[in-house]
Amino acid sequence: MRYEEFTIEGRNAVLEAFRSGKTIDRLFVLDGCKDGPVQTIVREARKHDTIIQFTAKERLDQMSGTGRHQGVIAYAAAYEYAQVEDMLRAAEEKGEPPFLFLLDGIEDPHNLGAIIRTANLAGAHGVIIPKRRAAGLTATVAKTSAGALNYTPVAKVTNLSATIEELKEKGLWFVCADMGGELMYRLNLKGPIGLVIGNEGDGVSRLVREKCDMIASVPMKGDIDSLNASVAAGVLAYEIVRQRLQ
Amino acid sequence: MRYEEFTIEGRNAVLEAFRSGKTIDRLFVLDGCKDGPVQTIVREARKHDTIIQFTAKERLDQMSGTGRHQGVIAYAAAYEYAQVEDMLRAAEEKGEPPFLFLLDGIEDPHNLGAIIRTANLAGAHGVIIPKRRAAGLTATVAKTSAGALNYTPVAKVTNLSATIEELKEKGLWFVCADMGGELMYRLNLKGPIGLVIGNEGDGVSRLVREKCDMIASVPMKGDIDSLNASVAAGVLAYEIVRQRLQ
Repeated sequence: MRYEEFTIEGRNAVLEAFRSGKTIDRLFVLDGCKDGPVQTIVREARKHDTIIQFTAKERLDQMSGTGRHQGVIAYAAAYEYAQVEDMLRAAEEKGEPPFLFLLDGIEDPHNLGAIIRTANLAGAHGVIIPKRRAAGLTATVAKTSAGALNYTPVAKVTNLSATIEELKEKGLWFVCADMGGELMYRLNLKGPIGLVIGNEGDGVSRLVREKCDMIASVPMKGDIDSLNASVAAGVLAYEIVRQRLQ
Repeated sequence: MRYEEFTIEGRNAVLEAFRSGKTIDRLFVLDGCKDGPVQTIVREARKHDTIIQFTAKERLDQMSGTGRHQGVIAYAAAYEYAQVEDMLRAAEEKGEPPFLFLLDGIEDPHNLGAIIRTANLAGAHGVIIPKRRAAGLTATVAKTSAGALNYTPVAKVTNLSATIEELKEKGLWFVCADMGGELMYRLNLKGPIGLVIGNEGDGVSRLVREKCDMIASVPMKGDIDSLNASVAAGVLAYEIVRQRLQ
C-alpha cells in the first residue's frame, strides 16, 4: 500500500510529479549521478525546496518497489499541505481568535497523528510542521489521526522561527512547554495563540524557545522527566480550551 | 532481546518459572498435547489464573527462539506486577487521597506505556489493568513508559468490575470518560478517585461504565469522535491534578 500510494519512481514519473504540483516530502537521488535528466529533477526539487538525499545504489534498490528507479525515488505526501494563511482565514471566518499548533520536530508519526487528532478536537485552526527533521504526512500519520487529517489543515514551513515572527506581526502570542516555565494555570492563554510542542527527545529548540512569549509548565508530581509529546500537547491544548470556555 | 528477556521455553523452564513465582502473562501449549508434564504445567497455569492458548505446532515453532519448546512457551512479564493494596498503602503513607488509573482494555503497548508515564507525572498511586484483552507489561511498554514503570506500580486483576466494587467499599469514587457525560470541569474530582479509561476502539465496556459514579466528557469542538486513548487519559488526569491543586 505504502508503495503504491506514496512512492514515485523513475525519472519521468518523478519529474512529472514535481511539475504537476504534487507535494514531494523527500527526494532520493543516486549518489554521484550527473546526467542531464537527473540534474533537471534536482533543479526542480531545489525550486520546490524539497529535501534531497544522495543515496547509494544498494539503498535505492532496497527502497524500490518496481526495481526500475533509474536513480530517483520520491516520497510524496499522503495528504496535501495547506498554507498558514488559510488557517488564519478559517479562524476569522469562524469569528474565533486563531489557535495554531507548531510542532518543533516531532519525529514519531504516531505522535504526529495523535497531535493532529487533538488539534482537531480542541478546535485548533491548523498544525504547522517544519520541513526538516520531522515526520511528514505519511500513511501512518493519516491512520493515527483517526480522520482528523481530512479536517485539520497541516502546513509545512522551511523555518519555524521565521514563521513565528510573521505570525507575531499578525497578533499571535506563542507559548511553549518547557522546564522552568510558569505553571500553565497562571498564564493567560485566551487570546490568539500558537502552542509550540518540542521534539520527543530534545524538547523545544533554543531558537524557537527564544521566540516564545510564554513558557508553560505542566505540574509534575512524579519521578520521571516529561510526558509523552502527544500527551503534553493534549494537556496544554485543553488548558487553552478550558480558559477559552470561561 | 525480546526472546532472551521475556520468552521461556521448554517444560522444565516453564514449570520452574511458575513455581518460582514469576508472573507469566500468557502460556502457549501445543494443541492436543495430553502427556503428564504438560498437564502439570497447565494445572499450574490454571492455579495462577494465567491465560492459556492452545496453539498449533507450526505457530509454536515460529514463536520459538531455541527450536526446542517441547510444546510449551510462556511469555513472562518484563516487570513485576503489584497488588492494589500496595497502591492504597502508598497513598496513605503520603497522606494523599488515593488516585488510581483503571484501564478497561488498552491494547496498544505504546498507549499503555504513555499512560503509565502520565500516571507517574500526575502523581497517581498506581495503574490497574485487566488480565484479558489488554496489553501486559512488555518490553515495548517499559520503553514507552520512559522509566515510569520503575516507579509507578501496575496491578493486573481478573475482573475490573469486581475490583471497582471492592475499591468503592474503601471510599473511592470512579469516573470514566464517555460520550454524553458531564463536562469534566463541572465534576468534583478532588476526593479518592479511580480514573477509568476505555479501550482504543470500543471505549469503556458497559459493565464497567455502570459501576462508575461519574461520566466525564472532554469538550470536543472538532469533526472526529474521540481523542487518542493516552491523550484522553492525560487530559482527564490533569483535570484531576488541577482540581486538587486548587
